[in-house]
Amino acid sequence: MNEQLLLENARSVLIRLEETIIFAFIERAQFKENRTIYLAGMFGAELHGDSLVGYMLKQTERLHAQLRRYTSPDEHPFSANLPEPILPPLNYTENPLRPNTVNINGELRRCYEDEIIPAICAEGDDGQYGSSALCDVHCLQALSRRVHYGKFVAESKFRQAPDRFRAAIATGNRVALAAAITDESVETHVCSRVRAKADAYGRDIAGDRPGRYVDPDVVMQVYARWIIPLNKQVQVEYLLQRGPD
Amino acid sequence: MNEQLLLENARSVLIRLEETIIFAFIERAQFKENRTIYLAGMFGAELHGDSLVGYMLKQTERLHAQLRRYTSPDEHPFSANLPEPILPPLNYTENPLRPNTVNINGELRRCYEDEIIPAICAEGDDGQYGSSALCDVHCLQALSRRVHYGKFVAESKFRQAPDRFRAAIATGNRVALAAAITDESVETHVCSRVRAKADAYGRDIAGDRPGRYVDPDVVMQVYARWIIPLNKQVQVEYLLQRGPD
Repeated sequence: MNEQLLLENARSVLIRLEETIIFAFIERAQFKENRTIYLAGMFGAELHGDSLVGYMLKQTERLHAQLRRYTSPDEHPFSANLPEPILPPLNYTENPLRPNTVNINGELRRCYEDEIIPAICAEGDDGQYGSSALCDVHCLQALSRRVHYGKFVAESKFRQAPDRFRAAIATGNRVALAAAITDESVETHVCSRVRAKADAYGRDIAGDRPGRYVDPDVVMQVYARWIIPLNKQVQVEYLLQRGPD
Repeated sequence: MNEQLLLENARSVLIRLEETIIFAFIERAQFKENRTIYLAGMFGAELHGDSLVGYMLKQTERLHAQLRRYTSPDEHPFSANLPEPILPPLNYTENPLRPNTVNINGELRRCYEDEIIPAICAEGDDGQYGSSALCDVHCLQALSRRVHYGKFVAESKFRQAPDRFRAAIATGNRVALAAAITDESVETHVCSRVRAKADAYGRDIAGDRPGRYVDPDVVMQVYARWIIPLNKQVQVEYLLQRGPD
């Protein structure tokens, strides 16, 4: 895959993921924060001391792992010790990435549970634990894909101008790498596009009781404060692992 | 729960489910039809001869059953022989329904795979089998909830005017019951609201390459041809089982 195609592919996936993430947030925001579903042990010994969201995430990933989800270079599990695929392996001949082990889902999940959920959901408890946890799994999987797509973005940036990155990679200079991958005008453009989308999709335009499902400013802030920075963190860590060659 | 509250609750759930269904369709319509995921045996002996969608649906329902999803009066599984919940039972004290066994998910799934998928997805195969099957599980669960919510609608209609239904229930007259529950002006209103929502949500208004994710007329037709009729079928069968008292 050439650099131009790689960049266009990554760009198109990231733009389309904005819908997926906004829809997932709107679905989660139907329910209150329901803090109890994030607390370990609140559902008793049956979940082996895990939280409801943790248990549902782990069991969902076990199923998806069997169906070879995590053999795809753009999918990253939150759980360790997942079962092997029961389907025969696919050959990802088009995979442009170098071998790497970058996976920041632990940090993403902490951000999601502690920061993003209180930002998008109303405070309190409505007892809708199963539905909320199901939405959480969906949100986390979409956010993980968005954040780790940074690997494709970084690979594409490197290939377009390798000399901008080689020295910083060779010396492990994260600050210089972060500066080299940052384009503030692109970030501003993403934020305003996401705000416009959340404004359009989060409004019950045709309902009989017009209202908003989600605050567009909040969605924009989630991008600005968590999604974009975590994506850049993936880019930096990936570049360090891929090496300067 | 009194009749007025019951009707308002049902109405508000059904309206909000329109967003859930439209978002789920938009997500599925990212991928081509991928007919192979609906064909039994196409993924080999590992899935015990099931189709990919059938296997993913069954395994997802096994997990959700353990988390007591199907003890809720508004949730209906597609699969038989699901495991018992591992969480202690909830007490649905507010459940207004009479005991019944109405579940038309078999018919819903046939409609979805054979009619709705070809209507909302582009023809062909893009190899995105896992992602498509995951969207299918999500669509099927939302559609099942929408269709079976007819039980709450029917109970509410019965309580508001029991004499309109008693004779037809007592004589098992499905044609008369179908006529008694039908309000064509409401159906027309639902269809036009759904079309307006699909028009707003299915349009990439802020993307750099404006386009449509889903055709609003197709979504409206899915409601008119399958969702509303299946919902009415649930209403009729529920009324017959609930009895005339």
